[in-house]
Amino acid sequence: MDFRQVYEQYQHDLQEIDNILGTSMESENALLAGSSRQLLAAGGKRIRPLFALLCSELGKMSEKQSVHRLAASVELVHMASLVHDDVIDDATVRRGHPTVRAQYGNRPAMYTGDFLFARAIRLLSSLSNMSLHVEMSNAIVRMTEGEIDQIRDFYDLGQPLKKYLRRIERKTALLISVSCSLGAVVGGAPAAAVKAARRFGYFTGMAFQVIDDILDFSGTESLVGKPVGNDLWQGNITYPALYTAQCTAQGAQLRNLVSPTMTRDDLNAAVALVRESGALEQANQLASRYLDKALVILRGLDESSTRRSLEVVARFVNQRMF
Amino acid sequence: MDFRQVYEQYQHDLQEIDNILGTSMESENALLAGSSRQLLAAGGKRIRPLFALLCSELGKMSEKQSVHRLAASVELVHMASLVHDDVIDDATVRRGHPTVRAQYGNRPAMYTGDFLFARAIRLLSSLSNMSLHVEMSNAIVRMTEGEIDQIRDFYDLGQPLKKYLRRIERKTALLISVSCSLGAVVGGAPAAAVKAARRFGYFTGMAFQVIDDILDFSGTESLVGKPVGNDLWQGNITYPALYTAQCTAQGAQLRNLVSPTMTRDDLNAAVALVRESGALEQANQLASRYLDKALVILRGLDESSTRRSLEVVARFVNQRMF
Repeated sequence: MDFRQVYEQYQHDLQEIDNILGTSMESENALLAGSSRQLLAAGGKRIRPLFALLCSELGKMSEKQSVHRLAASVELVHMASLVHDDVIDDATVRRGHPTVRAQYGNRPAMYTGDFLFARAIRLLSSLSNMSLHVEMSNAIVRMTEGEIDQIRDFYDLGQPLKKYLRRIERKTALLISVSCSLGAVVGGAPAAAVKAARRFGYFTGMAFQVIDDILDFSGTESLVGKPVGNDLWQGNITYPALYTAQCTAQGAQLRNLVSPTMTRDDLNAAVALVRESGALEQANQLASRYLDKALVILRGLDESSTRRSLEVVARFVNQRMF
Repeated sequence: MDFRQVYEQYQHDLQEIDNILGTSMESENALLAGSSRQLLAAGGKRIRPLFALLCSELGKMSEKQSVHRLAASVELVHMASLVHDDVIDDATVRRGHPTVRAQYGNRPAMYTGDFLFARAIRLLSSLSNMSLHVEMSNAIVRMTEGEIDQIRDFYDLGQPLKKYLRRIERKTALLISVSCSLGAVVGGAPAAAVKAARRFGYFTGMAFQVIDDILDFSGTESLVGKPVGNDLWQGNITYPALYTAQCTAQGAQLRNLVSPTMTRDDLNAAVALVRESGALEQANQLASRYLDKALVILRGLDESSTRRSLEVVARFVNQRMF
């Protein structure tokens, strides 16, 4: 079984989830409805809903509607964080791409995010399980801490690896972890399976973000959907740049190039340095180590088609090209 | 009994609520903790917690801890919306005052708001009553719609009164209404009292915001804590400006002055026009009509010291000078 087959198997569920997302985005305010619909139409891998669906099968509850709502709620939180990620600060970020922010402005983008957050909480409330709210709101708290950390650490090529790992944990791994654990909770899985789902999601999420950070350097604009080196351009120092900064051959040059006043030429030279330093191969190894940890946890679960699907999805996450 | 006496009577509860707010704002992220603490230290009337406390007494539950948490949760949502209100959009707002945004930048301010929202949801989750989440998240959805409406209607002196009323409903009345109704719910009040509390809070909240909008024109900078005419300066068209725009004597002049490119002198001239048009007296009458509606609802409740306190607070809201 490959990733495409898993996706096809859950096609109907993912469509249902998209329908719930569409309903949740309805608003009498035309701008809010429009900017939300734009997010929905932009698609996305819906990887978090897929994890929620799969992990719900670790329990015996066959009631799908609750799982769909939970999955949509997680995706709404993800979308809200994406929109907020686009809000710019002249002091720290100097350019954008066609986003809600670019089209409507900072404040509308921020309120679109708030609207989606509130819709997510509203949807979660329909599931009558307060533990979902507790885990979700704790995750959002830590996600906002991660976002602030990211701003604080902009352009800092001397930061310890630990800081990077903590950032990607909060930026990405936590919400994927929550998708898995809450999916398991809603599916009625036993406590041990919920815990396994949470840890599986965490490690898969860490791998997911490391791969994302590799693609920022290795991909092409048409494949990744944003300019190559975009993270570096915005001052967001990821593992490949951190690794390169420590290399004898490329470190000093990179540190000279990367700053808030860097030019497009500086960026292209910096991207070339990262590519030639071997950083991307190192980053791949880092992602693989996280994937391995996720797979070890899976092996602790009973053999099932769900377990096999989770493995397929986790492996895909680690090999994806976009 | 006057307002000061009511406040003193609940001094201990309000202190407890401030303690919960302080705990909710703790973060290992120094910036988040700092910006949140700044909000807490800035004080505020804590009018929403006070309404929640009072309305909780419409029920028979004497367990205070839940009421304190609910009150703190509502205040956190209020604080989050205040911080987000400060995020600027160069296209629409041109100046700020010493705020979280001014000190830390747009993005940190936005994430501080997100953090406070999430903390509010987390706190609410400790109360084990899903209906609180439903009403709160619905209110936040409508608040964000109101914020977008406000941006859309910037500088529009020809907008119908209805638009203004809808904006202040969403901007202010809803959350005060929620403070009252959820206070009553947590206090274990019967359904009819919860409904009365909700409507009382709504009308009191409408009066509250109309008065706020008057103070923007009638107050002095030292009293109100922001420059006179600040709403108009930011393009936010409130009742006094709308009324003046319809006046034969001052309307045309006002419309000539108010625009995104207005100068400080234009603003001062516009404020003078509003003051001489009789708009502030008209706005006072509008606020009084809302206060009257709130008082009529109170009269439907059983006579009690709580009812008397609610009346004192509502009347104070309508007469306040700051």
